[in-house]
Amino acid sequence: MREAYHKELELIGQALVEMANLVSSAMGRATGALLDADIQQAQSVTSTEEQVEALQRELEERAIAVLARQQPVATDLRMVVTSLRMSADLERCGVLAQHVATVAQRRHPQHAVPNDLRRTLLEMGQLAQRLMAQAAEVLITQDVEAALQMEQDDDRMDELHRMIFHHLMDERWHHGVETAVDITLVGRYYERFADHAVSVARRVVLLVTGEQAEELAATAPTPRGQTT
Amino acid sequence: MREAYHKELELIGQALVEMANLVSSAMGRATGALLDADIQQAQSVTSTEEQVEALQRELEERAIAVLARQQPVATDLRMVVTSLRMSADLERCGVLAQHVATVAQRRHPQHAVPNDLRRTLLEMGQLAQRLMAQAAEVLITQDVEAALQMEQDDDRMDELHRMIFHHLMDERWHHGVETAVDITLVGRYYERFADHAVSVARRVVLLVTGEQAEELAATAPTPRGQTT
Repeated sequence: MREAYHKELELIGQALVEMANLVSSAMGRATGALLDADIQQAQSVTSTEEQVEALQRELEERAIAVLARQQPVATDLRMVVTSLRMSADLERCGVLAQHVATVAQRRHPQHAVPNDLRRTLLEMGQLAQRLMAQAAEVLITQDVEAALQMEQDDDRMDELHRMIFHHLMDERWHHGVETAVDITLVGRYYERFADHAVSVARRVVLLVTGEQAEELAATAPTPRGQTT
Repeated sequence: MREAYHKELELIGQALVEMANLVSSAMGRATGALLDADIQQAQSVTSTEEQVEALQRELEERAIAVLARQQPVATDLRMVVTSLRMSADLERCGVLAQHVATVAQRRHPQHAVPNDLRRTLLEMGQLAQRLMAQAAEVLITQDVEAALQMEQDDDRMDELHRMIFHHLMDERWHHGVETAVDITLVGRYYERFADHAVSVARRVVLLVTGEQAEELAATAPTPRGQTT
């Protein structure tokens, strides 16, 4: 019974890592689709999004089953509840990757991104992908330091996002309104994606530090890092 | 003990309704701020957003406490878990209302919305506010019909969103790129806000229909509508 229980918690953790890795690589392909007007990469993002949605539903059912049958308390309970929030973050990221791919599809065979913004959007795309890969790692390692480092990458994302707006507002902008609209939306998708990645990492930190706080309060100390 | 338990579930339900009503009226004021370049209305949205965030944290703690102490099963368990998802939707809506208000603040004393788009954005703003008011009502009444009606209002929101893009893409557009960027973002904020309102209503429907399915499966029938 207890063994089955820990197996269930482990499967929930694994599903989160899988979702994070899937949406990370989906955003990588969406960025490729966007910058290269590559319709095949765009289409492959759609199938990943469906996979992520299925994982999310599965995780939710599994979490509810664990809550009903095993009735976890303390750290385990917080872990399950937090997993539900994180899976919602990750599902949303699948949709955001899909949105980026859709912009590429809508403008195909034309390019949605003008040459003078390619480098900035490539950096945003890579940063988004990397932040999510790091979130996946933090989910595994529960490394608070690694989670906190992500905040800096996110600051860089915000900086790039502001740079895009400066570029759009520049009176020398000559790519027309349609491109401005696309770039505005894509910039927002990347920024939200990064926010969700950081949010996942922050929730891991809250779990870990909550755990520490509980440990400090407890009279009988227990070894750390055995909950996921 | 049981009485305290039902009181807790009731308080969770009440907090959701309160959050929905708060973000509905916040979006109303954000729309006022946007259309009238009214800085005071914009500022009042900020304080509502903070209030909604506090309610969300409170609700989350209350839900975790109920799960830990009362260990609900079946419908009650789903209700608590679903409440966590709905509160995340509603918290996000507070942020979206804030985003609309921020656009108004950034352009003040100028107007962010050109005259030929006022009517469309007013309709989007009103629709967003109304959809959320209806979500609050559905949370109280658990009326499946009323929830399903919201889908039509959401279709209208999508139609208005498309109209905005047509307007932006029109070669007669003469309001410049900065306004195009603002309108693109604001359109997206309204559309996402409406999506969250519909999502809240859909979750209520899932809870109610899940309940019905359980009743059908159960041998001993129990009276409906006594769970929240």
